[in-house]
Amino acid sequence: MSHPSFPGLSQGVSELRASEIRELLKLIARPEIISFAGGIPDPALFPLDAIGKAYQAVLQDQAAARDAFQYSISEGYPPLREWITGYLARNGITATSEEVLITSGAQQALDFIGRAFIEPGDGVVMTSPSYLGAIQVFGTYRPTFISVPMDDEGAVLSELEAAFRKQPKFFYLTPDFCNPAGITTSLARRRAILELAHRYGVAILEDCPYEELRYENPRIPSFAALEGEYLQQPGNDGRRLVIYVGSLSKVLTPALRIGWICADPALINKLVLLKQASDLHCSTINQMIACEIAKSSHASQVEKLRKAYKERRDVMLEALERCLPKEVRYTHPDGGMFIWLEFPEGIDGTELLAEAVKDIQVAFVPGSAFYATEPKRNTARLAFSLGEPERIREGIERLAALLQNKLRANRAA
Amino acid sequence: MSHPSFPGLSQGVSELRASEIRELLKLIARPEIISFAGGIPDPALFPLDAIGKAYQAVLQDQAAARDAFQYSISEGYPPLREWITGYLARNGITATSEEVLITSGAQQALDFIGRAFIEPGDGVVMTSPSYLGAIQVFGTYRPTFISVPMDDEGAVLSELEAAFRKQPKFFYLTPDFCNPAGITTSLARRRAILELAHRYGVAILEDCPYEELRYENPRIPSFAALEGEYLQQPGNDGRRLVIYVGSLSKVLTPALRIGWICADPALINKLVLLKQASDLHCSTINQMIACEIAKSSHASQVEKLRKAYKERRDVMLEALERCLPKEVRYTHPDGGMFIWLEFPEGIDGTELLAEAVKDIQVAFVPGSAFYATEPKRNTARLAFSLGEPERIREGIERLAALLQNKLRANRAA
Repeated sequence: MSHPSFPGLSQGVSELRASEIRELLKLIARPEIISFAGGIPDPALFPLDAIGKAYQAVLQDQAAARDAFQYSISEGYPPLREWITGYLARNGITATSEEVLITSGAQQALDFIGRAFIEPGDGVVMTSPSYLGAIQVFGTYRPTFISVPMDDEGAVLSELEAAFRKQPKFFYLTPDFCNPAGITTSLARRRAILELAHRYGVAILEDCPYEELRYENPRIPSFAALEGEYLQQPGNDGRRLVIYVGSLSKVLTPALRIGWICADPALINKLVLLKQASDLHCSTINQMIACEIAKSSHASQVEKLRKAYKERRDVMLEALERCLPKEVRYTHPDGGMFIWLEFPEGIDGTELLAEAVKDIQVAFVPGSAFYATEPKRNTARLAFSLGEPERIREGIERLAALLQNKLRANRAA
Repeated sequence: MSHPSFPGLSQGVSELRASEIRELLKLIARPEIISFAGGIPDPALFPLDAIGKAYQAVLQDQAAARDAFQYSISEGYPPLREWITGYLARNGITATSEEVLITSGAQQALDFIGRAFIEPGDGVVMTSPSYLGAIQVFGTYRPTFISVPMDDEGAVLSELEAAFRKQPKFFYLTPDFCNPAGITTSLARRRAILELAHRYGVAILEDCPYEELRYENPRIPSFAALEGEYLQQPGNDGRRLVIYVGSLSKVLTPALRIGWICADPALINKLVLLKQASDLHCSTINQMIACEIAKSSHASQVEKLRKAYKERRDVMLEALERCLPKEVRYTHPDGGMFIWLEFPEGIDGTELLAEAVKDIQVAFVPGSAFYATEPKRNTARLAFSLGEPERIREGIERLAALLQNKLRANRAA
């Protein structure tokens, strides 16, 4: 895709480039490809019955329908914010509706936080690797990215402390089954990171779209829940540094574009004004439908999705264990949608993708797309949320065979 | 509303303040108030039957429903972009789908243009008065606003040329029945402004949400249509400087949050990436519904709304003509939703509102909210889109009596 220049653009926008994922999504459209590229929910699992009933209820009531298709307040539909505070409370986060802003998906929440905090050159700490959409949107505000590597328990503390010493605006992470690496930050690591954040006065931006999609081991409290406990303790600094971002996209449906930010009300007040300035409010009807299906179907959807995605994850892990050359490392996610591969040095994920699509009709996302700084090119992200178990198994077997051949050729060379 | 500060905010967001309109909308909720404040469509005129049918068609088709509730492309739903290019073609604008980006209402279109062009301190030219939501959102990018007064034909050319000499990034205007003043830029003035823009290389951002709501006189071609002709002429500069912003909010329904930008494809390419970064895409289902009801009902809605709103405008103009003190000037809009009042010096619109709400139960928006620089405080905006003719007449009679009393008191003082 060519991008001829347009005169007079701001630096943040002129530097925007098409993402690899975006270009790759075009590959998925070809039915002969077994794709592990799209990290999206399986539409066969959408709660379409509940959605249909919710629309019917609104559309049959003339007064409700007039409200549903009119302008509405920037904060968001009050009953939906109430449902969200109930959801948060069940997960250990005490918040009132005044601490919740509805956004157009979690992506807009990230945009707003970037816009609210970043002046050009400000430090933003990212795990390495990190969510591509966060790297992209924060990048438009031209921060100085500071990358922190992860081990099995999350961001490495010594490196995080070094990053925090540089007085960054915030630390962005996905604590549960992160996109792309599938790593979950352990409870001990969360406590240590929270302590570090308060010591250095750095905000924690936790992005929690997958937190309900847990397939084994007990839930770990979010940073927001842990900070709630911290702020109850005597002698703490009293600051509320955790910004929690949630979404209905992964459990219910992405297309209603409903996410939220839960944070200190002083911050939410400003973000409500930003919402008003940037797009007035989220679709009124969509918020009403989201509220209805959240009430009727969130719990049953979580159960259904855990069962379906767990099976797919297990099939993918089994096939990787059985077929993958031992030199290739991979993560064992407790939930979410992603497994992360790390190849021996010398195998480039982007080159491998080209071969895989051409020779074995398998697609994935090269890992280099997920680094804010200094990409590791010998990596790849596999999503297991789409596709039948049989196709997943077949795709991994083909990919493993391709890798065997490449490694053999490399050794011979 | 108190806004305690939150540490570390960017300057653009920390400077955001609650708007007067926002605070005023709370007044509308009181049924005893006759409100001319809310510049919003009458929900009794929404095409609810067509909307109901459109949802039913999607929801009854399992495959369509799965697509409708899944993630989709950032550019927007292709059939909706096709409908928009057809709409534009009927209005003299030749554009392909690649020149159209779907946005979350026209407000997001303005946000994206602000973000794409404005670095802090850059010049942005606004008519005086101008749309509050544009002033607010451009303000977050911290431009230097340059205000240009309007006469009956639109922005005053000599002042506009002086503004263009300062090399601003763009000139923002609503060419038809502008919010708040109800003024339409004449054809001769449009041609002259277009010529000026090309002479100085300044982009024109035309915001056209009301263009279909015309109650008398023939339609005037948009700047985009006129630039199309201009670019056909030999010897022109070949640059495409007009950025056209449209919306379905005023003709169909606001709550689907569907607007669009039509511009040079090199600019659209960048804005698609910005859309992707900032909120991925507009609600898929909403775009499908918007496309269906645009096809089935746009023409009939335009006819219905013209009839209903024309009657309300006529009632308001008649009452103003009959009752208003001669010292108060007001505009005669050919369409749209707004009439602008200019009081004699010394009558402050904000003070008048407080009295009007308290003493006569009438509300409007003080005009000072609508100035990017140097507000004229002796002004007010009346919206006639809501309310029955009888209530409009009654409200204007009360307001006129209050003004008579004030002017009499001022003369006596």
